Amino acid sequence: MASLSQLMENEVFMAFASYTTIVLSKMMFMSTATAFYRLTRKVFANPEDCAGFGKGENAKKYLRTDDRVERVRRAHLNDLENIVPFLGIGLLYSLSGPDLSTAILHFRLFVGARIYHTIAYLTPLPQPNRALAFFIGYGVTLSMAYRLLKSKLYL
Amino acid sequence: MASLSQLMENEVFMAFASYTTIVLSKMMFMSTATAFYRLTRKVFANPEDCAGFGKGENAKKYLRTDDRVERVRRAHLNDLENIVPFLGIGLLYSLSGPDLSTAILHFRLFVGARIYHTIAYLTPLPQPNRALAFFIGYGVTLSMAYRLLKSKLYL
Amino acid sequence: MASLSQLMENEVFMAFASYTTIVLSKMMFMSTATAFYRLTRKVFANPEDCAGFGKGENAKKYLRTDDRVERVRRAHLNDLENIVPFLGIGLLYSLSGPDLSTAILHFRLFVGARIYHTIAYLTPLPQPNRALAFFIGYGVTLSMAYRLLKSKLYL
Repeated sequence: MASLSQLMENEVFMAFASYTTIVLSKMMFMSTATAFYRLTRKVFANPEDCAGFGKGENAKKYLRTDDRVERVRRAHLNDLENIVPFLGIGLLYSLSGPDLSTAILHFRLFVGARIYHTIAYLTPLPQPNRALAFFIGYGVTLSMAYRLLKSKLYL
Repeated sequence: MASLSQLMENEVFMAFASYTTIVLSKMMFMSTATAFYRLTRKVFANPEDCAGFGKGENAKKYLRTDDRVERVRRAHLNDLENIVPFLGIGLLYSLSGPDLSTAILHFRLFVGARIYHTIAYLTPLPQPNRALAFFIGYGVTLSMAYRLLKSKLYL
Repeated sequence: MASLSQLMENEVFMAFASYTTIVLSKMMFMSTATAFYRLTRKVFANPEDCAGFGKGENAKKYLRTDDRVERVRRAHLNDLENIVPFLGIGLLYSLSGPDLSTAILHFRLFVGARIYHTIAYLTPLPQPNRALAFFIGYGVTLSMAYRLLKSKLYL
């Protein structure tokens, strides 16, 4: 297993592993935030979820949408749309032998921007807080994609 | 290509590859389930999709939403939200040199929980069947994230 | 770092890296397309996003949905649902030592099909253009999953 231990001794790859795990854990937190608001505000999408709150017609009144729940769901979907490209492009970028400090700068900016994006979305903070956080994360991923294609293009 | 053959001779990595392929194929099945319900129930989101069922106003009546279709779509989105973290964290966890039997236990629990989640969502089974399946998958991913950060944190 | 340079000298892996970066960049373009339509059509999901267009009740009229914006969002979600399996299965397939020309055929078909899917969805082109693009991408991913499980199954 020489190759595996070498992979995990590579500092860029280890940094990528750490930052990715953090940003994915943050994304998973959005599921619990949705569940929290659904339960405390009694807002459900499925009849079986509110069966405990009453029988028949009495339970159906909880099948509704709520601004707060929809806001968390939009933040969650935005995370998915941005973290999936980071995951794929970042992994390949990490394996392409970039400079350690450049790579760590990319990872830190991305993770910081996504955490700030969540804070700006859920508070909510006035624009352009959220837009700025979005574009920093977006720019970081595009920068990694550019470096990857420039050095390793093989079509 | 010594490193590649070594990677695929690593048992943890091969197990991860197999379970991931299975759970991603299961997720892809949700697309066909959505298409099946859209076609059999004539429920469409795009005007061009129901052009074959009539002209003009006659076709527009099929542009609607349906409980069954929305249920499959929610199950699909929940899969995405949970399988993406498993994909990223699980890959890095597999490369971090975990104990084989511990790793396989994680993968089996996750894949089993997600398959049961789909069954519970689509049947639908009464709660807490779906909630339990969700939290098992969620806990497995968090457990891998915890082990990864504990042994390999590099910020 | 012998293993890393070997990984990036592997032609299948380099091809996978290039095509994946392209298809993920294409998916990221959907975010800017959504933002473009939201701004030009003044259609927003969050009150803070349209605060610049007026005060109080005057701004609230921009909190609405729009066919064009919803179309882009559906295309984006469909991308996510299909590119995530390609990312996971394609990565593992690339590491399993496939024939170079077979692998590149898979990657090219997938990326071409997803680009055509976006064109067919956003134009929109009449069916079965979009359905065909969807099924080519879907079939390519299933073909890689089949080859992977056939050669490397380890449960």
